[in-house]
Amino acid sequence: MTASPKRIVLAARPHGEPKPSDFRFEDFAMPSPGEGEVLLRTIWLSLDPYMRGRMSEGPSYSAPVPIDGVMEGGTVNEVLSSNSPDFAKGDIVLAHSGWQSHAVVDGKMLRKIDAALGPISTAVGILGMPGMTAYTGLLDIGQPKAGETVVVAAASGAVGSAVGQIAMIKGARAVGIAGGKDKCDYVKNELGFDDCIDHRDPDFAAKLKAACPNGIDVYFENVGGAVFDAVFPLLNDFARVPVCGLIAQYNDTADASPPWAGKMLRNILTKRLTLRGFIVRDFASRRGDFLRDMSLWVRDGRVKYREFVTEGLDSAPEAFIGLLKGKNFGKQLVRVGPDKV
Amino acid sequence: MTASPKRIVLAARPHGEPKPSDFRFEDFAMPSPGEGEVLLRTIWLSLDPYMRGRMSEGPSYSAPVPIDGVMEGGTVNEVLSSNSPDFAKGDIVLAHSGWQSHAVVDGKMLRKIDAALGPISTAVGILGMPGMTAYTGLLDIGQPKAGETVVVAAASGAVGSAVGQIAMIKGARAVGIAGGKDKCDYVKNELGFDDCIDHRDPDFAAKLKAACPNGIDVYFENVGGAVFDAVFPLLNDFARVPVCGLIAQYNDTADASPPWAGKMLRNILTKRLTLRGFIVRDFASRRGDFLRDMSLWVRDGRVKYREFVTEGLDSAPEAFIGLLKGKNFGKQLVRVGPDKV
Repeated sequence: MTASPKRIVLAARPHGEPKPSDFRFEDFAMPSPGEGEVLLRTIWLSLDPYMRGRMSEGPSYSAPVPIDGVMEGGTVNEVLSSNSPDFAKGDIVLAHSGWQSHAVVDGKMLRKIDAALGPISTAVGILGMPGMTAYTGLLDIGQPKAGETVVVAAASGAVGSAVGQIAMIKGARAVGIAGGKDKCDYVKNELGFDDCIDHRDPDFAAKLKAACPNGIDVYFENVGGAVFDAVFPLLNDFARVPVCGLIAQYNDTADASPPWAGKMLRNILTKRLTLRGFIVRDFASRRGDFLRDMSLWVRDGRVKYREFVTEGLDSAPEAFIGLLKGKNFGKQLVRVGPDKV
Repeated sequence: MTASPKRIVLAARPHGEPKPSDFRFEDFAMPSPGEGEVLLRTIWLSLDPYMRGRMSEGPSYSAPVPIDGVMEGGTVNEVLSSNSPDFAKGDIVLAHSGWQSHAVVDGKMLRKIDAALGPISTAVGILGMPGMTAYTGLLDIGQPKAGETVVVAAASGAVGSAVGQIAMIKGARAVGIAGGKDKCDYVKNELGFDDCIDHRDPDFAAKLKAACPNGIDVYFENVGGAVFDAVFPLLNDFARVPVCGLIAQYNDTADASPPWAGKMLRNILTKRLTLRGFIVRDFASRRGDFLRDMSLWVRDGRVKYREFVTEGLDSAPEAFIGLLKGKNFGKQLVRVGPDKV
């Protein structure tokens, strides 16, 4: 037997930025799968900005993690034993089993990962939730047309990098926003975006405007805050704004009034803007289309991705705190266990 | 010959509420139609909230009326003489010839009114721009489903009354908002809305909430201001907000931050709201569907309408100032000339 299972639970609801003490490490006894259940060993844990929302109470699209509950998260796992007719020992499966080394999960909540599509880690990355968020939000809500300008922030990240590359596949101009020169260079030179602006630049708003001489037709919103303030005046008539995330605001404890607030409805009217919030599960029916297109694009090299890996379950809290500050460079993953034991 | 032609021009750009001195009456010489043009005598002038926008400079979906320019507006007219092969003396036509008794207009800008569809005044009312605004905004953006709750303000007015009645035809619950007991009684008892709340009631927000026990699925936005503030917290997940007008804010001279501002993007995200601005001409391709459906509904008595008529072109400025304050009760029209001379 290996070392005893470990998990990370929510110790306290953060006020503002999460701190290490908001998390607690626990050992627990190896669980046994019941009827229809499967015992999993976690290989990869995905860390994603939405998890900040689960740490707080208050209205959201999902219930919060309870105090002392295991932190939520998507995972790539090996099946250690199975009481489900659909899974066998050794299968590699996608689960939502959270921040822990082992878990018992109902077989109905699992999906087999097709290793032919790409490295198994991509099942929680470019071929998983972040990739499908980019795909559905951009194509189903943003609906970019050839020649239009698409802007996305966190452009070196899991969702933003896919948004810009899909936009270019559709013939649009892609302008990224990212934090720091290294990320901007990567977005321009490796991913091939038409431009990328550093949001830490003191002239950020002016540079964004210069990078979008024909205005902005689609703004894929995943950060909010000061970036939205700079984008809002540049939106063209009939612009579409899929609202996918607001990472810059997740740690806010007050509802400050942003500079565009008083003009918000007026601009929606006079520019005939569409703002629409979504989460990826609203587009579950598009999963087949997404997997077909995205796996092809990845294979063709038309969509590139970058992973940012920290080692060991213990690294998850610091990695997550860093993710909220943009310290990651690419899709944030935690290597919880080896591919094979 | 009758009295000389008269027109009303924009004398000054209003600061806040328009005043009578912002308008100027002028006599002018009877114009002569050139090649392809038609001389019109105005019968009905439509007064609509959007005209407030045309009086101001600043970004909007249409250019402002220039100082000393004739105030814009939709009209029902008789053709006095025609140099267009498409129109003959005596034809009744829809034009956008503005606040004047006579006008010369390019025949290409005119549309014949089919008197078989209803009284000719309805061509600028329930069978015209206001009716089509309600029809397209509600059906194409709002997309109400049976059993859902649709809320609309200015519910006794030209657009709002049609919105609620179409919602009910589609099986939705219609809750109106109007100013004063008489209008609310009319909306409930004559138009058959499920409920109507007086926005002047000191308990307006609480009463609106009580009238929408299952929340709000579609809010047809035509007023903004305090009504939106009360509606916003009641919006359900996946609610749709066609943004058609903001009459309560048109006279605002500053961009005050409304109470929902800080929460706006967060609620769009977590509730997956759709907010979309539109003007009726964005849906020009739906004109045939609209006329077919709406003329049928009016004939069947499923859509009722009410007209609020002031007499003579001279009455237009005061009537328009009153419209912005909700002093009208039904579609605001100015009787500029008799049906037949």
